[in-house]
Formats: sequence, C-alpha cells, structure tokens
Amino acid sequence: MSTAPSRVFSSDNAAGASPEIVDAMARAASGHAPPYGSDPLTDGVRRRLCEIFERDVDILLVSTGSAANALSLAALTPPWGSVLCHRHSHINNDECGAPEFYTAGAKLVPLGGDDARIDPDELRAAVRHKAGDVHSVEPSVVSVTQATETGAVYSLDELRHLGAVTKEAGLRLHMDGARFAGAVAALGCAPADLTWRAGVDLLSFGATKNGTMTAEAIVVLDRSLTAELSFRAKRAGQLAAKARFQAAQLDAYLTDDLWLRNAAHANAMAARLQDGLKAMLGVELLGAAEANILFCRLPQQVSERLLSDGYTFYHDRWEPGVVRFVTSFATTPQDIDGLLHSIRRHTA
Amino acid sequence: MSTAPSRVFSSDNAAGASPEIVDAMARAASGHAPPYGSDPLTDGVRRRLCEIFERDVDILLVSTGSAANALSLAALTPPWGSVLCHRHSHINNDECGAPEFYTAGAKLVPLGGDDARIDPDELRAAVRHKAGDVHSVEPSVVSVTQATETGAVYSLDELRHLGAVTKEAGLRLHMDGARFAGAVAALGCAPADLTWRAGVDLLSFGATKNGTMTAEAIVVLDRSLTAELSFRAKRAGQLAAKARFQAAQLDAYLTDDLWLRNAAHANAMAARLQDGLKAMLGVELLGAAEANILFCRLPQQVSERLLSDGYTFYHDRWEPGVVRFVTSFATTPQDIDGLLHSIRRHTA
Amino acid sequence: MSTAPSRVFSSDNAAGASPEIVDAMARAASGHAPPYGSDPLTDGVRRRLCEIFERDVDILLVSTGSAANALSLAALTPPWGSVLCHRHSHINNDECGAPEFYTAGAKLVPLGGDDARIDPDELRAAVRHKAGDVHSVEPSVVSVTQATETGAVYSLDELRHLGAVTKEAGLRLHMDGARFAGAVAALGCAPADLTWRAGVDLLSFGATKNGTMTAEAIVVLDRSLTAELSFRAKRAGQLAAKARFQAAQLDAYLTDDLWLRNAAHANAMAARLQDGLKAMLGVELLGAAEANILFCRLPQQVSERLLSDGYTFYHDRWEPGVVRFVTSFATTPQDIDGLLHSIRRHTA
Amino acid sequence: MSTAPSRVFSSDNAAGASPEIVDAMARAASGHAPPYGSDPLTDGVRRRLCEIFERDVDILLVSTGSAANALSLAALTPPWGSVLCHRHSHINNDECGAPEFYTAGAKLVPLGGDDARIDPDELRAAVRHKAGDVHSVEPSVVSVTQATETGAVYSLDELRHLGAVTKEAGLRLHMDGARFAGAVAALGCAPADLTWRAGVDLLSFGATKNGTMTAEAIVVLDRSLTAELSFRAKRAGQLAAKARFQAAQLDAYLTDDLWLRNAAHANAMAARLQDGLKAMLGVELLGAAEANILFCRLPQQVSERLLSDGYTFYHDRWEPGVVRFVTSFATTPQDIDGLLHSIRRHTA
Repeated sequence: MSTAPSRVFSSDNAAGASPEIVDAMARAASGHAPPYGSDPLTDGVRRRLCEIFERDVDILLVSTGSAANALSLAALTPPWGSVLCHRHSHINNDECGAPEFYTAGAKLVPLGGDDARIDPDELRAAVRHKAGDVHSVEPSVVSVTQATETGAVYSLDELRHLGAVTKEAGLRLHMDGARFAGAVAALGCAPADLTWRAGVDLLSFGATKNGTMTAEAIVVLDRSLTAELSFRAKRAGQLAAKARFQAAQLDAYLTDDLWLRNAAHANAMAARLQDGLKAMLGVELLGAAEANILFCRLPQQVSERLLSDGYTFYHDRWEPGVVRFVTSFATTPQDIDGLLHSIRRHTA
Repeated sequence: MSTAPSRVFSSDNAAGASPEIVDAMARAASGHAPPYGSDPLTDGVRRRLCEIFERDVDILLVSTGSAANALSLAALTPPWGSVLCHRHSHINNDECGAPEFYTAGAKLVPLGGDDARIDPDELRAAVRHKAGDVHSVEPSVVSVTQATETGAVYSLDELRHLGAVTKEAGLRLHMDGARFAGAVAALGCAPADLTWRAGVDLLSFGATKNGTMTAEAIVVLDRSLTAELSFRAKRAGQLAAKARFQAAQLDAYLTDDLWLRNAAHANAMAARLQDGLKAMLGVELLGAAEANILFCRLPQQVSERLLSDGYTFYHDRWEPGVVRFVTSFATTPQDIDGLLHSIRRHTA
Repeated sequence: MSTAPSRVFSSDNAAGASPEIVDAMARAASGHAPPYGSDPLTDGVRRRLCEIFERDVDILLVSTGSAANALSLAALTPPWGSVLCHRHSHINNDECGAPEFYTAGAKLVPLGGDDARIDPDELRAAVRHKAGDVHSVEPSVVSVTQATETGAVYSLDELRHLGAVTKEAGLRLHMDGARFAGAVAALGCAPADLTWRAGVDLLSFGATKNGTMTAEAIVVLDRSLTAELSFRAKRAGQLAAKARFQAAQLDAYLTDDLWLRNAAHANAMAARLQDGLKAMLGVELLGAAEANILFCRLPQQVSERLLSDGYTFYHDRWEPGVVRFVTSFATTPQDIDGLLHSIRRHTA
Repeated sequence: MSTAPSRVFSSDNAAGASPEIVDAMARAASGHAPPYGSDPLTDGVRRRLCEIFERDVDILLVSTGSAANALSLAALTPPWGSVLCHRHSHINNDECGAPEFYTAGAKLVPLGGDDARIDPDELRAAVRHKAGDVHSVEPSVVSVTQATETGAVYSLDELRHLGAVTKEAGLRLHMDGARFAGAVAALGCAPADLTWRAGVDLLSFGATKNGTMTAEAIVVLDRSLTAELSFRAKRAGQLAAKARFQAAQLDAYLTDDLWLRNAAHANAMAARLQDGLKAMLGVELLGAAEANILFCRLPQQVSERLLSDGYTFYHDRWEPGVVRFVTSFATTPQDIDGLLHSIRRHTA
C-alpha cells in the first residue's frame, strides 16, 4: 500500500476494503457451504441485524446499491404507481432507470427541498395528487435518502414527520441508506428509531462505500414483503450462488461495530477538513458537513491547481466554482492535512 | 479447513474459492481505484480475454450467472422475440424468469435433444417457425449451454452445426458457459473455436462454480453490442461501484491458466469416480462424465445410506433411483475414494 | 350486400356485424355522453351482465380479445408467476407475446390434452410444480379456452374438475371466452355455472367473432380485481374516450339474446356442414363440431379445387390434408349447401 | 337527437360521431373481409394518407390516443432512454404511465414552456444532458403535442426549430396529434410541412376527438419503423381482428376533407366564444384560442351558476377561477350563443 497521503476525494467508492473484511473473505473461502443464502454466515448476518434493529428482520444480500433500491421499490409500488423522491436523489438521476426497470414502469416524481432533503409541504401535496384517478399514476411509495446525496442528515424529527405524512396517506416508505452508517454515526440514534419506528418498510443498507467489497443488503423491516422480494431478487440475477461471500463481508462489517467505527471516522475526516477550511480566505463553505461529504466554493485557479497536483474531486457539476470533497473510512488525518496544506498554498 | 474428506457432491457452487483468488482480493483491498470498471484491473482482465479468445472482445463483470445470461439475451432479442433453448436449460428452468424479465417479455421456446444438447433437426424447424408473422413471437436467438446442464459437452462439430443453422436463419447465438472452462478442458479446443468461430455472439463466462467467489462475466464477442449491454447492466443494478473486486477475481482466475487447471481437475475427479463405479455391481452409469457431472442409477438403500453417512447429492429429481454427483476444483482424490468406498460398502 | 353464397370459411373474424349492432352504433352517435366509461350505456351493459351471470360483476370494455386475455392474466399473476395453458391455446401461439408483455414477463407453461382441452392429470402436476421455489417461476394462474381453439367444448363436469384442481392449489382461473357464446349455446348451461361457479375469476367475453364490430369485454367475476384492472387498462391504452361506442355494441349484443342466437346459428351451420360431410366418401371427419369449427381430412385435389373455386379456409397447418372450416352468425344455409355441393362434385 | 342547445364544454371527447362516419360503419358491416388490416378499406386509408402527407407512409390503426402515443414512443426509445416532453403533456400526466409501460421503463423528462409549448432553450440543454453516460437515462426522443394540451398551436417556424434541435442531437421526434386536424386547420399549412419536413418520425393522428367513434392511427413517416411497430401493436392487443371497422371510420374521416371541415368548425366555435367573451366585463381571456380550447378567468359565482344551469366544463384545476371551455365538430353556433347568454346574465 502506498504510504504517501491519498489525494482521492472524488467518492467513497474509490476506497478499498477494511482489513477485517479481507480476513473474513479468506476465512469464508475454505470448506463447503450450502448455496443461495442457506449458509450459516448469512443466517448470522440476519441475526445480527435483528439485534441492531431491535426487531425480527429479514435480509437480502445483493451486489449493488442500485439493485437494493430498485428491488425495494419494486416490492412497494405497482407498475402504475409513482415513487415520490427528491429531484437530486440517486434513484432519480444516477441509476439509468433501474427503478423503472425493476418496477415495470413506475414513475419517479421529483420533489424539491434543501440539501436533497424532501420538503414536507411538497410531500404532503404529492402523496394525494390524483390518488385513485386511473388517468394518472397512483402515489405509492416515498423514498428518502439518509444521509442525503449532498451529505445532509435528516434529523429524527424530520424523518418522523415525513414518515407520518407518508403513512397517513397510505403510502409505503423506502430509505436509501447508501450512507446509512454515516447518518447513524452522526445522529447517535438507534437504527430502529431512524427506520421502522419512523415508518420505513424497507432499507437499502449500504456497506460498499463504508468498507466492504461487493456487498449490499436490503433490510426487510416489514417481513410480509420477504417472499416477494426473494422471487424478485432471484429473477433479477441478484441471488448469488456463493452468497456466503457477501455474508462474510457483512458479518465482519457488523462485528465489533466496524460499520459505525468506519462511518464515524469518515465523518470525523470531513469535519477536520471543514475546520481547516473555515479559517481560509477565499474558501466559502456551503452547508455543514453532517456526514462525509463537504461542499464548498473555491476560486477557479485553486481547483485547477489541486487537479494539477493530482487531487481528484467533483467540481463545476452543480454550479461554477462549487466543489465536492468526499471522505471515507480509508481517509487519514494526513490525507486531510495534505489537502488543506495544498489549498492554503494555492489560495495564498 | 477440515482435513476429513468432503462429502459434498451436490453442486460445484458449494465449494469455496481458490487460494489465488483469496490473495488477489487481499491485494485489491488496499489503495484507491476508479470505480465502475474504469480501474486498471478490469482493463487487464479484458486484455487477457482478448488473448484467450484471439479477438478484440469487451467484457461486462456481473454478479451471477443468471444476470450474465439474462443480460446477454436481452441484447440479442427484441421483447417480441423468442429464445430457442433446450427444455432442460438453466435459463428455462432455474432462473425464475430472469430472461423474461430482462428481455421485457420474450418467450423461451424449449427444444428437445439428448443430454441437454439441442437437437439440430428441432432447431432447424424452430429457427423459421412463423418468422415474420406478427401473430407470433419472432425467432431471434439460440442459447446453447456448454458444458450442458447434465454435464455433456458439445463437440466442435456439433457446435459449428448449430451455429450454422442459427446464422443461416439470421438469428443470434448465445452461449451459457457456466461450465465453459470444463468444456474447454475436456475438448482441448481453442476458446475461439468453441465460440465466435462457431457463431457465438455473447458468452456467459462462468467462473464462480470453478473457483472464484462472486464474479461472472459476459464476454462480448460481437462488440457492436457493448454500448447497449453497458446501459442494460447499469440499469439492472449489475455495474458494481468497486468493480475492481470482481476484476481481481477474474484476473487471478485467468493467470497461469488457473481456470483451466481448476476445470481439468474437476473433470478428472468425475472421471475417477466414473472409473471406480464402472466395476461395481448394482451401479448403472448413465451417459459419460464428459465434464464434472456424473449421473448414475443407485439402488434406493444405497442412496439412503450415503445420505445417512452425511453425503449430499441430488437424487430422485429426474427419475426414481437416478443420482447426480458433481465434482469441483476443490474435490480431492481422497473425497472420491471415500465416496467410492462408501458406495462399495453399501452395495456389498 | 352480395347475394351470391359466401365462400369464406377461413375464420369467424371475416364476417361483418349484425344489423342490430349497426343500428346501435348509429343511435349512440348523436348527442353528448360522458367519456371513459362513465356513460349510461356502459352502465347498462354492466347491469345486463349482472343478470346474465347471476352475480354482481364489473366490466372492462377493450378493443381486442388479445387485450382482454393479456389484461386478465396480468391481474392474476405476478411477473414471476406462470400461466398454465394448453399448448394450442391462443394466448400461447397467436398473440405475439401479449401475455408476457402485460404481465411483465410471466411464463406460459404449455400443457397437453385432446382437442385443445387441458388434460386434468397434466394440470394436477403442473399446479404444484416447484411451487415456493425461488429458482423457478411460481404456478399462479390457469387459463382455459371455452370453446377451445379447435372448436371443442368443455363439459360442465370437465370445467368443474379443472376449476377444483386449480383452486385447491391456490391458483387463479381465467377463461378465454373468444367463443364463449358458442359454448353456452352448445351446452345450454347457465353462464354462471360455466364460469364463477366453476371457479373462474375473470372471463374474456368474446363478441367480435360473433357479431360485433370492435368490442370485447372482460367480465370481472371477482370484483376485488376491478381497481387494478382499471389502472392496467388505462395504462395499456385500452380505456376508450368514447367508450359508449363499445358499450353500444355490447348492449345490442346482449339485448333479446342476440349473442346466443348468433352463436346458436353459427353452431347449427357447422352441424349442417358436418351432417352433409358425414355421408361423403373420401371425407374423414375429425372430432365432432361442438361449436362453429369443423375439422376434416380432404383429398389434396379436393382442397385445391375448392381454393380454385374461391373458397377460403385453413389447410395443411396441422397435418397434410387436414382442413378447417369455420362458420359464423353470417353463414347461411345456402353458403353451407354451396360448399357441400362443391365438395361432392370434387370428390366424385 | 336533442334539439336543445348542448351545454357540454368539458371535452371534445364527449361529442358523438359525424354522420358520414356512421354511414361508413353501416356500409362496412355487410359482407366478409380479410382480418387484421389486410382488407381493402385499410389499404385505402393508407393511400389517402400518402396523398395527404405527400409521401409513402404506413399506418397502424389503434383504439386510443394513449395507445398511439405509447406505441410510437416505444419504437423510438430504448428502455434506458428518456422522452423529452412538456410537463403539461398528455403523455406525462394523463396516460397512467402508458409510455413507461410500452417502452419497458423509459423515463419522461418534463420541460417547461408557455402554453404547453416546449421551450427551445430547455430542449437544447435536455437533448445532450448526460448523453452517453451509463449512469443516466439516454436522451432518445422528443415528443411535441400539436395543438398543445392548452389549445395553443406551434407555428411552422417553431416546429422546425424544435425539429432541428432534436435532429442535430441525433434524437427522434414524435408528434402527439390528438388535435392535429385543429392545428392544420388553424395554420393552413401542408401536413407534410408540419410533420416529416420538420423532422417528425411518427405521428399520433387523432380522430376520435374530431368526429370518429373508436379509431386512431399512427402515421409512420419513417417507414423503417413499420415492422417493429407491427409486432408491438399486435403484442399490445392493438391489432383488431375486424380492422375494417377502424378503417371505415378513417376512410370517411379523410374523404372530402371531413377531418379538416370538422376541425375548422370546432376552431370557429371557439373563436366565436372568444369574440363573445372579449367584450364582457368580469371575464378575463387567458391566451388566444388558437384551436378549439379556450381558457379564461371567471368570477367564482359565475362558474357556480353555469354549473347549476347544467353546463359542464373544467374549472379550478389550474388555478382558482380559471375555466376551460372546449368546442368540437358537434358544437353549434346556438350552443355558443346559449353559453354566452348565460355568462352575460350571470356577470350582470
């Protein structure tokens, strides 16, 4: 492994995997095990998640976050339903229509709101929009992302409120938890409070961005959906023969709170970056780094010089001058300090 | 790892992973890499496959064989097309309608033939059945499995013949290569001869049953299909963020012919089993073990006693008394000898 | 209208429309009416069907029999389900995959049986085949055609038996009634006995082949399916703005038993043809003409001469020498006698 | 027929049918004809449309406008494509997801613009948005409505401009012509200029709102799409057995310019209403009635009194106080004068 500080701040999906995950994969590689999720490791993961969520849950291990999201939505809406989501949500913009594919053509209805959080007033209007009218798609499911695509974190009260609006109108609630660990770490809440106690029926439980290799999961909080999800997952090519190798990753990920430790570290690195930037002239922080994503405005020539230095990050995607830095479990204080040093030098 | 002989002969998907694969995963876990297949490992796999197939090919790394098959078929048939396949084929029986899902409702037309090989005469009739008639689905793609679901291997001549029938009628050709390595090892042919030179457009290149953990690939022999496949794969939740962890498995799998060594070993173990059973009274061999699957007829009480001994294998699925043993890269001569010893004892 | 005898025996869909239907269309053309089925004519049709079926039913007016079948099936099976049907059924062979399209990829499982009647023993095996196994599509709905595609009619006992097998296994039952009127006329049974009392959940109530212009209906015998069907129909482009013009046809069709009179007439014309052919040397009747379709074997040169005379009928589709004649409400005794005369002349 | 003035201004789909259409249906009802569009009437319609559009075109007769739109879009976009349309378009709001169903999950991207006309600047950005990026749906087809959903009419220059933007980016162009006749009548342009010469590939040629009963058509301006459309139509349950009854309607509709005369009349009735309202105090006209739809703002108590009088029209759907009146071929000057009289009375 390179000992020089990393200059990768483009995404948490550019990191590798935690050593505990590597060890778990090696252990799982020896001996035989029953296929398709009937192995002991998969069952162990389920039991751990029952403890973490304080409820009998089922799980489906899948290969990507898009698959977790799309499968979940397909179980929550009929093809003639609509999925209410933030207009900046990953399901709306970054999955090439996976939700439309898996749901057999449901419609995503984009809503507004700051920091990629759904505005409750817009939601309240949308959940009843043309309900029961056969000329229109039927409002069927709300999807919230926690933490959001811009790194904001819904507070427990905000979530409960959205959940109440959703449930009062008879809709189902999905949570895209690609960065769920980061949100739990940031809020210090019980996972149960952030999910089923607020009305969440299905959770896409992200792991890949936070230290695993190729494992994602759907946590089935409403177990009446399990049978349907199982058929849908197989049919989608998402039931792995050697499922133990996905389970092994999640088992290690959940052991000794690795998932929360990794997330807390990534959050701390973003906070360290934020602290360092606060004092700098010419840098404007945009929003607060509630999880592991930080937005700021940098002078054009600073961005260019950072890129010349070999730094990678997204820029000019939102507005000219706006830059996004993402930290991960693998980001070190030295990486942050190196980045801060470079920005300071270029703004001087 | 247990040192006692393994008694698992149910499927090659119950085995673990080759040590070389484990090492490759560990190496890939450190450092950062670009996501979604733009990493150097993925490109390396592509280049290796170009050499192996003696042609410029593209690859898509996916998580399961069902995904590889269903994605491939979706790129080869319109929704109103039909997929001609053997009635015992995996795509027809064991994927919960994944081909129908991915193709948006194409129809699988089951054909007959011994040992799960498609009968050429049936194929010749089927490729032109109601072609051009809007009242009927349109014959669009032929899917062959090599080695077949019962462990038979199409000879090069047989494949060429099926390929010619397919191409003369203007259809596309898909190969389900869940056990492709086994077929190559058995025939000693060039992979190019077994695929594109015989007309194959897309190959589901199986790896999981033969030593990897969670990696399968589509080898795109007709590169005009690559762009469409890329969109379809993303949309299906089959484009992994940390694709390097799939690539690492395939890289090790292809290095120093591990894929062929593993397959040859599995085949040899099936042959060893066959040799041992040949001499035994009361055991009737069914077909020849051309790859790593052996069918035979055992007296009922022999099967029962093997199960009591802890052996696992499929039985009574095809006809009463018919038993299937599957070997793998992980099967040892001791495992085979142990099984033979038990059968001999129970038939005595 | 031509006064020469008609020589069209190719299909009942080549006939025009009953004068009562024409009059009804003209009446409906004046004045305004609420769109999308909220008009009084549509409600009137529903009420008539409630009387005919001795039950509160709902209806959906659609434009084709394929749409009626495919919509019905979509409401009765999930995408990962299977539709058990006869291998000669219209849904399996003649709708270009419409069931697969509407159901989002369910699988049609073809069964055998004489005269396009489903064999009850095959059905009994199929309804439980791999039920609950996520690797396989799930048996979900049985579709019977009454009268069948070859003109046979299930007896009441046969239907009850198939219905019992279906319902005991927890599946749903659909009836393709493209020639339902012919079956009712042939059996003299109450429509209720032939449908919901035998377990039928949804009936494709054919009308076009029997005297209407462009109107078909789904009779919703299980009204819990109505809401879903309504969304599906709109979404399929099957909810006509000026639905009254479909309703007008069905209203006239049901008034004064026009539907049964037309069907009885068509049946009688087939019987007249059968009676005439019975006595002829060189003509072999195949099965009994239970409704309005007659199969027989004619010497090749007889077929050829009939075609030269301008007769239209299907031949050589099933086996060489096998010919199908179809009568309709518009067939006259003179038409039959003319055909008989020609055959007699050519066989002499 | 009622001789009292009609009070129905809710939609042009509440009108009946032109007498010429009724006569044509009666004529078509006698005698036999080949099914599924191989009859002479269907061919005659195609030939008439070739003349009208000054080009070899193909046609598909379908039962609803939603089917015409959805089928057309399905032939113009892959499932991973996007359909760029106005946010007030019928395909986006009023078809219960029919486009999503027929396209197997393409995404509708709503654009802005006055009077339901697509804003060219928004279009210019949208046609290249994330093109080629597998993470996003691919811009594939632009759909314009002529006349628009609010009764505006794109000028020839406007259409040419949108067409050029579409074609330069390599996208396909669909026109929803539910009120195409009204636009042609309003502009006095050649249909060819308004369609293929401006880049339109497929036209949903509306007829039902303008005098037919149950007939709509797709005019295939790019005939390379015909074969695919034919399979898609059959598969969608949109290929009528007795297609001649759809053809008969269109034949009469196109004969002696009935389609243009009906549309010109409807437009004139809207203009007469506009003229009458112009002078009235308390009534605010909103936009110009370019075709057969008029928007205005009425005092609340005026609306209420009109409703009490038995008038039907949409109100308060857009903003409080905004009212929509729609005229049709069946609207008489007496109907308009009656309405004007009532409004005048209630505003006095």
